[in-house]
Order: sequence, then structure tokens, then C-alpha cells
Amino acid sequence: MPREVRERQMLDAAVAVFARRGYRAASMDEIAELAGASKPLVYLYLNSKEDLFSACIRREAEALIAAVRAAVDPGAPADRRLWNGLRGFFAHTAAHPDGWAVLHCQARTHGEPFALEVGALRQQLVDVVTQLITETAADGGCTAPLPETEVAGLAHALVGAAESLAGWSNERDGAASSEQETAATLMNFAWTGLENMAHGRRWIPIGA
Amino acid sequence: MPREVRERQMLDAAVAVFARRGYRAASMDEIAELAGASKPLVYLYLNSKEDLFSACIRREAEALIAAVRAAVDPGAPADRRLWNGLRGFFAHTAAHPDGWAVLHCQARTHGEPFALEVGALRQQLVDVVTQLITETAADGGCTAPLPETEVAGLAHALVGAAESLAGWSNERDGAASSEQETAATLMNFAWTGLENMAHGRRWIPIGA
Repeated sequence: MPREVRERQMLDAAVAVFARRGYRAASMDEIAELAGASKPLVYLYLNSKEDLFSACIRREAEALIAAVRAAVDPGAPADRRLWNGLRGFFAHTAAHPDGWAVLHCQARTHGEPFALEVGALRQQLVDVVTQLITETAADGGCTAPLPETEVAGLAHALVGAAESLAGWSNERDGAASSEQETAATLMNFAWTGLENMAHGRRWIPIGA
Repeated sequence: MPREVRERQMLDAAVAVFARRGYRAASMDEIAELAGASKPLVYLYLNSKEDLFSACIRREAEALIAAVRAAVDPGAPADRRLWNGLRGFFAHTAAHPDGWAVLHCQARTHGEPFALEVGALRQQLVDVVTQLITETAADGGCTAPLPETEVAGLAHALVGAAESLAGWSNERDGAASSEQETAATLMNFAWTGLENMAHGRRWIPIGA
């Protein structure tokens, strides 16, 4: 069997075990067994548990970003891009719940270098959304452009909302049929709000 | 010194150390030293590192929920309640960054019983927001009531957005002056969207 195929099997097994057991409790024995490989071969190919975990994070992060980018047609209007990006995101997290659990729950709290890699993924998602919001505001004819800090805040809000919904959606029964529904819920929440802001409409507290 | 005061000092020290080092790497020696107490006394009062971590999570979660509830006047209109709830939330997470780090980053990934306690906090936040959205939809005269699943999805989206912004806001420079700004950003994002939905206005994809 080519090394590439073997390595992919090992990473598949590792993602499943890390997602279920957590980084610390995951054993290389279980990963090797699930991959149908010997433990020495896993070490030979992937070097260490730490490197294996890093490789899982990197692979899952790249796959998620690629899924979102592939779903978005750069020439489409802003609302279609957001809608398709959200569908791509939720379809991917629903199809890869173990990968999502590794990225969202496991990788962030085991210090460097893992947190750094997940931070890089999150920044890429935030960048995609930041660009979208900036363009939406420009298209909307917002008289005063949205301040940079506010755009950054909105982008973090939207990414946080999507992350939260991905976890919620994966924990529900019948999640497989609801990606579209989840994307529509967030679209309605985010778009109507963003669209109003892009037209310069704001909520202002009384007496502020 | 009364036991109650001593215990509070120990919990203060523990929250600071857990936030900085993480659960595994945190040492009882460092916690005792920072609390100005002997290690045997910390064990006598708080029993074990696991129990100490649980006590930190419980205390920080209760304080956060209490801050949000105290900020909201139940008789105010829905937009004021959301605005004040968000201000209460961001003011508290900004004033207690270590407590927030323990709840948001540390507690979720070290398995039971910690994840369970943080899950209970999150559910309380989601419940507060769910009630608010339900009432907003009723006030808005939405012709068809929002389906329960959609309300749950919106509540998870809003809580996720707030969590994401709390982390982002705490990592920025000059965060102390920006709680109001962060709350206003999320309010503009969430309210204008929710208000439109409460009036039965929706974003519908072309061809769907």
C-alpha cells in the first residue's frame, strides 16, 4: 500500500480517536489498531503523538477552508456568497463531525503549537467574512463606511455564531437533513442585520 | 482569617493560574503561593485539584449569569433588555478575563464533570436569549410564529457570537474602553436581524 494511502488511514483513525477521547487520553495503540497498522509504523510515518495531532488539525482546517472557498462563487452578489459559504461550512462540519470536534473543542486548549494552527484557521474564516462585509457595505451604498473595528467585530460575531451553530446542529438528532435549515437560520439572522447596516441603518439606544 | 475569606483568596488564585497555565499544567504549589496559603490548607479547604477547578467553574459561571440577569430589567422593551444584557455580559467578561478564559477555553475540553458545568452555564444563557427572541417575535406581530427549532438556532447563534466577541474584545488593546462598543456592534448585528424576523421579514434564496 502506498505511504500516502497508509498515512491517510492513520490520520482518519487519529481524528476519530482524538475527537472521542480528547488529546491527552487518546492512545497511539487505539489509533494504530483503528488504522489497521502497527504502532511502530504510525511512529515511523507521523513521528509522535504531538506531530500526529498537529497533522490532524492542519488537514481538517485545510479541508474546512477549502470547502467554504469552493462553495463561494466570487462573482455572485454578496448575499449569495454568504449563503453559499454558510451552506458549504455547515455541510462540511455535518459530514465531518470528528474533524470539527478536533478543531473546535480539542485543539484550542492544549497550548502551542496547536492553538496557533487553529487560530490561523479561524483568522482565514474571519478574513473571508471581513471581505464580504466590507463589500456588502460598499454595495449597499452606506453613506459613511463602517469603521474597521466594527467590521472586525461583525466578522468575529458571524464566525462565532457559525461555530456555535455547527456544534448545536451536530448534537441534534437528524442533523444530516438540517444543514440547509441551519444555514438558512444564520443567513436570516446575519444577512438582514448586515444588509440594514450596509444601508446605514443602525440600532441606537434611547438616550445614548 | 475566616474560612470564607481564605477560600475566596484560594479561588481567586486558582482562576488566575488555571487561566494562564491551563488545567493540566497548573500546579497546586503555584496556586497556594499566589493565595498566600500553605498547600495543605488548600487541600483541606478545597479537597483536590479537580474539585478546585470545579469550584472555579461554578463560581465564575454563577457570577457571569448573575451579572447578565442583574443588567436586564424584565419590564423593559425587548431591545433594551437585549442591549442591557449584552452590556452586562461584555462588562463582566472584560472585568474578569481570567474567569472568562477558564469558562470559555479551559473548562470545555477536560471532560466530565467540567464540560457538564460549563454546558449548564451555556444553557442558561441560551434560555435567557430564547425567551427574549420568543417575546420579540410575539411583540413584533410576526404573522406566523417562528418555529421552535429556528428560535433555538437563533439563540445559539447569538450566544456563539457573544462568546466569540468576548474573546476578541479581551485580546485587543484598550479593551477596557470598548465594552460599550462591542455590545453596540453585536446589538446592531443581532437586533436589526431579529427585529426584521420578528416582523415576518425573511431572506429567501432565489430559486429556493
